[in-house]
Amino acid sequence: MTLRFGILCFPGVQQLDLTGPYEVFASAEGATVHLVWKSLEPIRSATGLMLIPDTTLAEAPDFDVLCVPGGSGINALLTDETVLAFLRDKASRARFVTSVCTGSLVLGKAGLLAGRRATTHWNALDFLPRLGATSVEQRVVQDGSLITAGGVTSGIDFGLIVVAELMGREEAETIQLALEYAPAPPFDAGLPSTAPPSIVEAARVRMAGSRREREALLG
Amino acid sequence: MTLRFGILCFPGVQQLDLTGPYEVFASAEGATVHLVWKSLEPIRSATGLMLIPDTTLAEAPDFDVLCVPGGSGINALLTDETVLAFLRDKASRARFVTSVCTGSLVLGKAGLLAGRRATTHWNALDFLPRLGATSVEQRVVQDGSLITAGGVTSGIDFGLIVVAELMGREEAETIQLALEYAPAPPFDAGLPSTAPPSIVEAARVRMAGSRREREALLG
Repeated sequence: MTLRFGILCFPGVQQLDLTGPYEVFASAEGATVHLVWKSLEPIRSATGLMLIPDTTLAEAPDFDVLCVPGGSGINALLTDETVLAFLRDKASRARFVTSVCTGSLVLGKAGLLAGRRATTHWNALDFLPRLGATSVEQRVVQDGSLITAGGVTSGIDFGLIVVAELMGREEAETIQLALEYAPAPPFDAGLPSTAPPSIVEAARVRMAGSRREREALLG
Repeated sequence: MTLRFGILCFPGVQQLDLTGPYEVFASAEGATVHLVWKSLEPIRSATGLMLIPDTTLAEAPDFDVLCVPGGSGINALLTDETVLAFLRDKASRARFVTSVCTGSLVLGKAGLLAGRRATTHWNALDFLPRLGATSVEQRVVQDGSLITAGGVTSGIDFGLIVVAELMGREEAETIQLALEYAPAPPFDAGLPSTAPPSIVEAARVRMAGSRREREALLG
């Protein structure tokens, strides 16, 4: 069995949104993972790492799993009709339509969240209802063929859930062990509910510029 | 304050060993992160993702933090005198010498683990004593200026610990929150001690080829 994963790879993507699930998907037996963008030129991620797409929107095959990662670069996608049309088209033939972090906002703009339960980065949850979705504060949310994940690092938990859905729990557990995924965060600041208020404020300040842009775009 | 992080970026690197800490380091205020290799040509990681080095072994600046990720590609480095000499030289002027996953075996071959406590991927721990180190089964091990991390995903926990050491706990917590690092693995198979025996066997089989090569190289 060959499973085909397609991940949107755009300028300003948060690279760990993409590279976390990539490593899980690509570790699955018989999987192929494609990075899709408008051209095959290297793109610069939000924190500077360069990524190289391997297929284009125009030439991409259909995918078993279509995945949209997040990052500040999603703002430009929210009004990009070429990208939104690509997602609608590929989603209609994918087994799972998925996102990590603020990638779900792009799915929403493409009309793919209407009436569905979904999640996103904690600092963007309030945008989901504006896109017709019911927002759920949960690390990974599955609503039928739609699987959305929370902020950035949730993409690893998400990747294992997707592999288990498609290939069974044993495959997912084998990958989890190979990746030694027994996380041990040194601090307990991963969510606004557990982080000190001063840290929540500091994180909000760092993300404020990108959020303001989104507010203008999503009304 | 500018902090300079240098990560070795070689063919066959396990990309998540590199991209996890990269995202943490690059999210730190005033940090610059360099990917270092012999040339600036794109390299293919162990699972296929292409990465682009931005500086060469010959031209790299000194680093506050020198980091060697792991992956099947380390086997070629274990006998690569150019790389080992580079690491010895840069390590002598770095504040922290670090590794993720089997990257510690390369540090060991460079002579940088002699008499030190260190860790690595669970399937490679037994190699550490052959390199003069005391092997410690722990997700992240700090021995003075040497910080080594366990398999693949431990690089995220490691990254936060390194940032806290250099810039304080608040900076690390702010990054943890921005990356929503509140992991929730769907299964409990991240370590040989918690995974079902059949899964441990399956994971060992997948890694057997690379391990055999290492055994030949490390005696």
